[in-house]
Amino acid sequence: MGIVVMKFGGTSVANVERIQNVAAKVVAKRNAGNKVVVVASAMAGVTDKLINMLKELTTDYDLREYDQMVSTGETSNVPLLAQAIKQLGVPAMSFTGTQAGIETDNKYSKARISKIETKRLEAALDSGMVCVVAGFQGYCPESGDVTTLGRGGSDTTAVALAAALHADVCEIYTDVDGVYTADPRNVRHAKKLDVISHEEMLELSSLGAKVLVSRCVELGMNYNVDIMVLSSLEDKPGTLVTSKMGAKMAKMEKIAVSGVTSDKNQAKITLRDLPDRPGVAAEVFSALGGTNINVDMIIQNFGVDGIANISFTVSKTELPAALKTCNALAKTLGSLKIETDEDIAKVSIVGIGMKSHSGVAATMFKSLSDNNINILMISTSEIKISCIIEEKFAELAVRVLHDAFIDHGDNIG
Amino acid sequence: MGIVVMKFGGTSVANVERIQNVAAKVVAKRNAGNKVVVVASAMAGVTDKLINMLKELTTDYDLREYDQMVSTGETSNVPLLAQAIKQLGVPAMSFTGTQAGIETDNKYSKARISKIETKRLEAALDSGMVCVVAGFQGYCPESGDVTTLGRGGSDTTAVALAAALHADVCEIYTDVDGVYTADPRNVRHAKKLDVISHEEMLELSSLGAKVLVSRCVELGMNYNVDIMVLSSLEDKPGTLVTSKMGAKMAKMEKIAVSGVTSDKNQAKITLRDLPDRPGVAAEVFSALGGTNINVDMIIQNFGVDGIANISFTVSKTELPAALKTCNALAKTLGSLKIETDEDIAKVSIVGIGMKSHSGVAATMFKSLSDNNINILMISTSEIKISCIIEEKFAELAVRVLHDAFIDHGDNIG
Repeated sequence: MGIVVMKFGGTSVANVERIQNVAAKVVAKRNAGNKVVVVASAMAGVTDKLINMLKELTTDYDLREYDQMVSTGETSNVPLLAQAIKQLGVPAMSFTGTQAGIETDNKYSKARISKIETKRLEAALDSGMVCVVAGFQGYCPESGDVTTLGRGGSDTTAVALAAALHADVCEIYTDVDGVYTADPRNVRHAKKLDVISHEEMLELSSLGAKVLVSRCVELGMNYNVDIMVLSSLEDKPGTLVTSKMGAKMAKMEKIAVSGVTSDKNQAKITLRDLPDRPGVAAEVFSALGGTNINVDMIIQNFGVDGIANISFTVSKTELPAALKTCNALAKTLGSLKIETDEDIAKVSIVGIGMKSHSGVAATMFKSLSDNNINILMISTSEIKISCIIEEKFAELAVRVLHDAFIDHGDNIG
Repeated sequence: MGIVVMKFGGTSVANVERIQNVAAKVVAKRNAGNKVVVVASAMAGVTDKLINMLKELTTDYDLREYDQMVSTGETSNVPLLAQAIKQLGVPAMSFTGTQAGIETDNKYSKARISKIETKRLEAALDSGMVCVVAGFQGYCPESGDVTTLGRGGSDTTAVALAAALHADVCEIYTDVDGVYTADPRNVRHAKKLDVISHEEMLELSSLGAKVLVSRCVELGMNYNVDIMVLSSLEDKPGTLVTSKMGAKMAKMEKIAVSGVTSDKNQAKITLRDLPDRPGVAAEVFSALGGTNINVDMIIQNFGVDGIANISFTVSKTELPAALKTCNALAKTLGSLKIETDEDIAKVSIVGIGMKSHSGVAATMFKSLSDNNINILMISTSEIKISCIIEEKFAELAVRVLHDAFIDHGDNIG
């Protein structure tokens, strides 16, 4: 009898009626012969209400108290779901993160899972119980404090439990019905993927696709957990995120590009007139790294007349912090000029078959250029190519690339 | 440096502004040179909202899930209070019942505290921290489950913590400003008591005074915890509930009666034509005891012609269950007739000085009779006399007795 982990987000459990719908899905899965672990988020809106009250007191709040408070959103919800399942004649029990044995470090509000002690869950599953686990939370064994896992925390709980329990699959129920080759709101012909590899999904998540946070995909990749992305509203097939070779091979032979994404949360900083001596770049990026600013693309031009220029991108949200660091640097590095550009976007193509097809990059650059879209920066990896372009072209660029690689995917290479 | 436990109820912490007011009171107490433990309830209304959702699923819900759910009302509130205290420059930390070491049995929804492991709280207090503990909850060490303590649970948490920490006093902040000689809404001349003994308070609580639940007074009596009942709205002296002899003596010499209460939650059952043989009464009351029905007053008349009558009172809320038991008895005891009367009330006078003053009972009966109030049943103890009367006379009876014993208290005996 295999184990299935099913995760439901906040809108899926936002009121009693929806909780009952979720309970019916859970019971159907269980009655089909599976041991079932359910991971649920807080009711949509509950946690925000609590956070707003805390912010009325101060914006500089204690993160331990924040975690203790917001975790109650999930904790108060899982008993309702457990009871709804019991009403359908199936034994069920709710678990806090602590009761489910989810141990974390002590980094309040963005804790990392260190270990899952599965004994209690396994005993409950063996006794025929459906286990309903509060997502997004764990506890630090040293302090006994409740911790929360940060953005996308409930997805992370689900994949981590699936890994620890050696589940057959981790099903993530969301308000979309799977992973698409591009955002369907922008690209009308976007196709739902039946299957995608962990690596590709990780790139897509990192590059702006909202369906799964990268952290949870990374966890799935590291522990080889199959993740199925499904609609919580409709009963139809979703997208399987897997590392099973069969799935990958089938796709690799057919098309090179699995998805096209854009990300407008990008800003470019250019440092001009840097002294052109060894170690300057290291000085710049270790200062930024020291303040936990995530630098994405970097271009350094060759020094002329003893000075150099460096351009790099950060997320728009981190731009103020990055500028603060650069201004501090300017004092130690002399006559530094700092320029910023927020009107940019990153457009990317992702595909595990890319490296085995020649001409993918050339096709990408030509497609953009044919549409008068200027490329400001380029970065590549084994399975993706990203270009920084003007922000206003973001949607157009995605459509152009989707058209070039996916709608006519069989023609390239 | 002494320890003070301060308890605030749901209306005192119902929004951010009130939480800030409570924080100011706590900080003042702490800055006056005390180690402070705060016990807080859930925001008024929060828990009811959760319970209503559970009841939408079923009224026959699992009590473990109920406890897991409702305890979040307190857990989500204490971090806000801790943060509000920190905003006033005083270190503070929130604790769940589990984190505060409050161990209970596994009787979900009405758990009893078995032990308090105070190490973590004591360490926090020693480091200068104000400890903000979630009321109403504990945990069962065997199962790791959260439990709740039932009605008046946060008061019980406060007194239990005061006992375990050997606090100087347990301050209960409520929406009244102390314990009165009678309900001030009924008796205009009701006086606030400066001091009352645990024993008297216990009787008053059991006899219908709402200010403290008997369970928490009993705990205070058993562990000799001084309880101060205070207004959370106004800054004025409250009532001290104590067993310190000095307080008792001072009062004993002055007046005999500390308080007059009435309780309309009373019903009388009369069993007629019982066989008048030894063991019949035992049979009746062990059957009632076996179903956890709390029988209060009992009158058994002498048998005439081999039959007997028994009358007893139960709370109105337990009347249906008591009748069910009596109907079952009727089958085994033969031609039993069952009569009920719900239009009754119990009026009581309580005073530790009572036994040292003669004539208290006589004065009570005469005062009622002078006002044409018929006495249906009487019960007495060392420190109280209760009479069952017609319900419609309840308020009048309290005023008459208050007038006889308290407004002119120095004249009796």
